[in-house]
Amino acid sequence: MALSTKVGNTSQTETAPEGRLPQASPIYSATGLDVWTMMNQVAASVGAVNLGQGFMSYPPKDFIRQAAQDALVENTHNQYAPPRGRPGLLEQLAVRFSERLGRDIDSGNEVSVHAGANEALLSVFTAFLEHGQDHEVILMEPAFDQYTPNIAMAGGVPVYVPLRIRDGCDAATRNVSSDDWRLNMAELEAAITPKTRIIVLNTPHNPVGKVFTRDELALIGAVAERHNLLIVADEVYEHLTFGRDHVSIATLPRMWERTVTVGSAGKLFGVTGWRVGWAVGPAALIRPTLAAHTRIVFTSNTPLQEGVASALRQAAHNGFFAIQREEYLRRRDRLMAIFADIGLPCVVPDGAYYLLVNASAVRARIPTDYAFPDFITERGANFKLVYFFIKEFGVSGIPPTEFYSDAHKDLANDYIRFAFCKTEEGLEAAAERLQTLKQFLRGPAQA
Amino acid sequence: MALSTKVGNTSQTETAPEGRLPQASPIYSATGLDVWTMMNQVAASVGAVNLGQGFMSYPPKDFIRQAAQDALVENTHNQYAPPRGRPGLLEQLAVRFSERLGRDIDSGNEVSVHAGANEALLSVFTAFLEHGQDHEVILMEPAFDQYTPNIAMAGGVPVYVPLRIRDGCDAATRNVSSDDWRLNMAELEAAITPKTRIIVLNTPHNPVGKVFTRDELALIGAVAERHNLLIVADEVYEHLTFGRDHVSIATLPRMWERTVTVGSAGKLFGVTGWRVGWAVGPAALIRPTLAAHTRIVFTSNTPLQEGVASALRQAAHNGFFAIQREEYLRRRDRLMAIFADIGLPCVVPDGAYYLLVNASAVRARIPTDYAFPDFITERGANFKLVYFFIKEFGVSGIPPTEFYSDAHKDLANDYIRFAFCKTEEGLEAAAERLQTLKQFLRGPAQA
Repeated sequence: MALSTKVGNTSQTETAPEGRLPQASPIYSATGLDVWTMMNQVAASVGAVNLGQGFMSYPPKDFIRQAAQDALVENTHNQYAPPRGRPGLLEQLAVRFSERLGRDIDSGNEVSVHAGANEALLSVFTAFLEHGQDHEVILMEPAFDQYTPNIAMAGGVPVYVPLRIRDGCDAATRNVSSDDWRLNMAELEAAITPKTRIIVLNTPHNPVGKVFTRDELALIGAVAERHNLLIVADEVYEHLTFGRDHVSIATLPRMWERTVTVGSAGKLFGVTGWRVGWAVGPAALIRPTLAAHTRIVFTSNTPLQEGVASALRQAAHNGFFAIQREEYLRRRDRLMAIFADIGLPCVVPDGAYYLLVNASAVRARIPTDYAFPDFITERGANFKLVYFFIKEFGVSGIPPTEFYSDAHKDLANDYIRFAFCKTEEGLEAAAERLQTLKQFLRGPAQA
Repeated sequence: MALSTKVGNTSQTETAPEGRLPQASPIYSATGLDVWTMMNQVAASVGAVNLGQGFMSYPPKDFIRQAAQDALVENTHNQYAPPRGRPGLLEQLAVRFSERLGRDIDSGNEVSVHAGANEALLSVFTAFLEHGQDHEVILMEPAFDQYTPNIAMAGGVPVYVPLRIRDGCDAATRNVSSDDWRLNMAELEAAITPKTRIIVLNTPHNPVGKVFTRDELALIGAVAERHNLLIVADEVYEHLTFGRDHVSIATLPRMWERTVTVGSAGKLFGVTGWRVGWAVGPAALIRPTLAAHTRIVFTSNTPLQEGVASALRQAAHNGFFAIQREEYLRRRDRLMAIFADIGLPCVVPDGAYYLLVNASAVRARIPTDYAFPDFITERGANFKLVYFFIKEFGVSGIPPTEFYSDAHKDLANDYIRFAFCKTEEGLEAAAERLQTLKQFLRGPAQA
């Protein structure tokens, strides 16, 4: 997909007014829809069960919501926080990451709080890339769709290296493990040039669900060290692994000093609307990240920062994270069982809350004369598959092709991403809707 | 002040670690302190009464806090909002601005919600400026300190035109009106080049308190029209005028189509920590602004958006804005009386909540051998004045020189900005502390 389409995002189609008026920068004047808005609209048009966007369809636990409500009572919690973050939250993050990274984290120098993990990523890119320098950033595909425009805003150039399914896996007919999606180290090395500055590493991985092993991280780390690269570790799903332990690359030898680890309260506590994220790393990396943050949003919202601080304090003792992991595991297993029953294979996720379903059997059965609207057809085969799926079977997902560059987007053609951060009722409703799919798959494939 | 100093912001002084490690972009690797952190630290060192940063030292009204607490009860209010904003808030903003701008505002196309007015401004600059094009943006000095780095991030070049005190005003010995600070239209015209794209207009003005008249706005608008410029109207203090009516430039003939008006719930409801702001304008201008916003932070926090929506709904009927204006008027008058009693003249503000005090009489009496720390001396005469004032008289303010470019910073040398969004007790405590200043001013001026 063209960069301008990836950056532009709106649902409007009106033309520019007549006459001589200020014109937007071309990159922001695109009228293409972002994938989330587009698919939400398609889903709404048929009243689909929404397993698309990764937000929770159930309430946060009472103690979490209460923490935010209580925070609002304090006057100071309604006023500006220091740009770095509220002291109480910095303190709690230092406690959490001291334990998780196995080192003493200095809350005053090695942590910064952001307006969501998204803004933390933009801050790091802004701090370490320069306009006019064509600095390159390595992204592993599929790559979260905000990385590319965030890098472009900061003046960088994304360079894409796809994860590839191991040879011999028949992903179209049977389940594969997310661990079967591998980074080819020779491909990674080949992508690096003298202009490369950053490797973005997302583990647990959205949408594959891959949890990188220590061995894989060591290989990536060695490349970063050899070429003196910054590692931006997007670990927003670090608390959600199933049977396999999450490893932070910052815990590997000599990696701390070149890694900024990014996290998210929205993901950690199931409150994606709170927009509280963070960056953790050595002072020399957090200092410029904080400088960029201060100029991007000045500071992130105070009451919910305090709510997160209190929730972290309580979660350390009330077993929340273990309970939440069990709940997600049950949801994952239920959604996998639903697709197993229908006969569509998936990529078994070891982490995060997405299921990549291989729907090549559906794709093969799309009637050749099926009427796709232009806004879908122009986005290619994967959008057509997902559109067809939503319209015909009433369950919505996201086309993972959106997570790929033009050169590699065909790798996503057979897949649909479903989110399982949804209620039991929602999953059962999906199961019921998908009975028609079961019937459909008994029909013949098209030519 | 150099751009890199204005962009860089941190309180750290550690040196870069040894060895070969990723280096930040020079613009973000500055180790200079931002003015807010620096002055807060100086204030804390002497336990000063803090009239520096413009946040409220009193609680928000109960109905406002309650609105946010109630919002948290709804599950959907804890999850992602649409990038444009929660429908309920967009609706309330359309109601408010339909009335204030005297036209029907379309909530689905002519409004966007942002992570604070700061991020709204960054979004507009990002959408309408281009890196590598040296697009110029006119700022009227004194100019809010975030404008310059925000414009630079978006690839623009700030061009400064100072407001100047009318000839014949003896500002060092008697009060002047904020209306005595004028934009010289010939200076404005002379600053415009073929590369100019935007005029930033701040009314009511921080820190001068000037509320631009319709006539002044018409002249500025004519320049914008003649040169086809976008007007970014920072009107975050639109609700706080004293005796003079705020006029939105977007209400003038042919100005709507080239104006983006920016506002802030933090300022409107006295909750600077909520980080909910907005942009209002024609769809052709809001569409790219929203596209930039979506890539900067994706969306702003949901619970406080809903809190603001509810607060707007209630404020339309409970008289809040009139009551709040009266409260600010009392605070303004009290702070002016305090300085009148001491014998320091001020700029009488017609709007916003700042008082510029002319402290040339203090400056003339700073002992020639007074020990200033290096971090103050290197920032020039105005920082020395404010530092001296805080240390000796225990009341903190902000050096307005920070709101000026290098070429014009001497215009601020005699001034200190105090904020009056503070409790009665805080203002009285300041009055008490300042008795020593009264004594001090009876002493002789230095050579």
